[in-house]
Amino acid sequence: MIRELIAKNRTYRRFYQDVEVSQETLRELIDLARLSSTGGNLQSLKFVLSQTLETNKRIFKTLKWAGYYKDWDGPEEGERPSAYVVVLHDQSISKGFFWDHGIAVQSILLGATEKGLGGCQFNSIDRVALAQELHLPEHFAIATVIALGKPKEVVVIEEVNESGDIKYWRDQQGIHHVPKRALDDLIFKVEA
Amino acid sequence: MIRELIAKNRTYRRFYQDVEVSQETLRELIDLARLSSTGGNLQSLKFVLSQTLETNKRIFKTLKWAGYYKDWDGPEEGERPSAYVVVLHDQSISKGFFWDHGIAVQSILLGATEKGLGGCQFNSIDRVALAQELHLPEHFAIATVIALGKPKEVVVIEEVNESGDIKYWRDQQGIHHVPKRALDDLIFKVEA
Repeated sequence: MIRELIAKNRTYRRFYQDVEVSQETLRELIDLARLSSTGGNLQSLKFVLSQTLETNKRIFKTLKWAGYYKDWDGPEEGERPSAYVVVLHDQSISKGFFWDHGIAVQSILLGATEKGLGGCQFNSIDRVALAQELHLPEHFAIATVIALGKPKEVVVIEEVNESGDIKYWRDQQGIHHVPKRALDDLIFKVEA
Repeated sequence: MIRELIAKNRTYRRFYQDVEVSQETLRELIDLARLSSTGGNLQSLKFVLSQTLETNKRIFKTLKWAGYYKDWDGPEEGERPSAYVVVLHDQSISKGFFWDHGIAVQSILLGATEKGLGGCQFNSIDRVALAQELHLPEHFAIATVIALGKPKEVVVIEEVNESGDIKYWRDQQGIHHVPKRALDDLIFKVEA
């Protein structure tokens, strides 16, 4: 059951932009992050919810899409995300935040997948510009951004081939291919 | 559905040590991490699976348990984890690993919860000692450790009270209490 949801939760970069994601839906997703584990139970992550055309635009222009696609700058108008969650680290609570952003994002995206939505997580963010766009107080650092919407593309997982190349790629039909390493290649066997 | 699983997935520190976790179960859990997102699709995390008394002992002695419990050094013999997953960063693949350990651990622990197991994630690890115990090659760095087993304690979530104290605590019945911030306290509202 959880395996199916995890397998279905792929990274999507094109969306049915006219399908809205409600404020209530975003709050339900943040509540999943709230219920998840955080290092030392510090709960130092905060969240900006965006699902209006205006704030979505402010966020979109600070993101760099799909590093391995050299000739694609991101989704065109009409295929852009309907919503975003900006994950902030509240530095007035703690110095660091361990792995909390990974856990929070996985909970949020699994919840989104269950609702028929999908998303994409960003590290390539113009953080200075985004902090200005959102008028963030200085004690907030931007940990990551999640784009959300109803996916408008097909993503398939396949095995890494002999070349060992893990770069995702898009075929002529627009299908996004993601090479994954084999299970045995991820396990390090300890000597007795 | 995913909400119930996330709510049930609490941090457990005492286990029915005689309930074994099979190698096959651990492999199924690692496969959930394998199917999960990784930054740039780099897949630089590797995993050590431990479920024998001997390797479990080697790992146990390098862990520091429950930072907020000043008078408790961890579970006694008989209540210790039946298994561990040591999450490694393979530095021959990439310099960093983004939020990958958080995502991987959340997938693993949600899978464990579904199977009636539970666990605890560690950052307080004697990494030098553990690398020696496991004879890790130099290109591996220890990202985190997950202890796993059949939980032998009750964990309850409650609201953070007026003091704002987020420290978890154990009552006289041995019930572990985890104060969580309210949803509205996690949401930062952006000015228009």
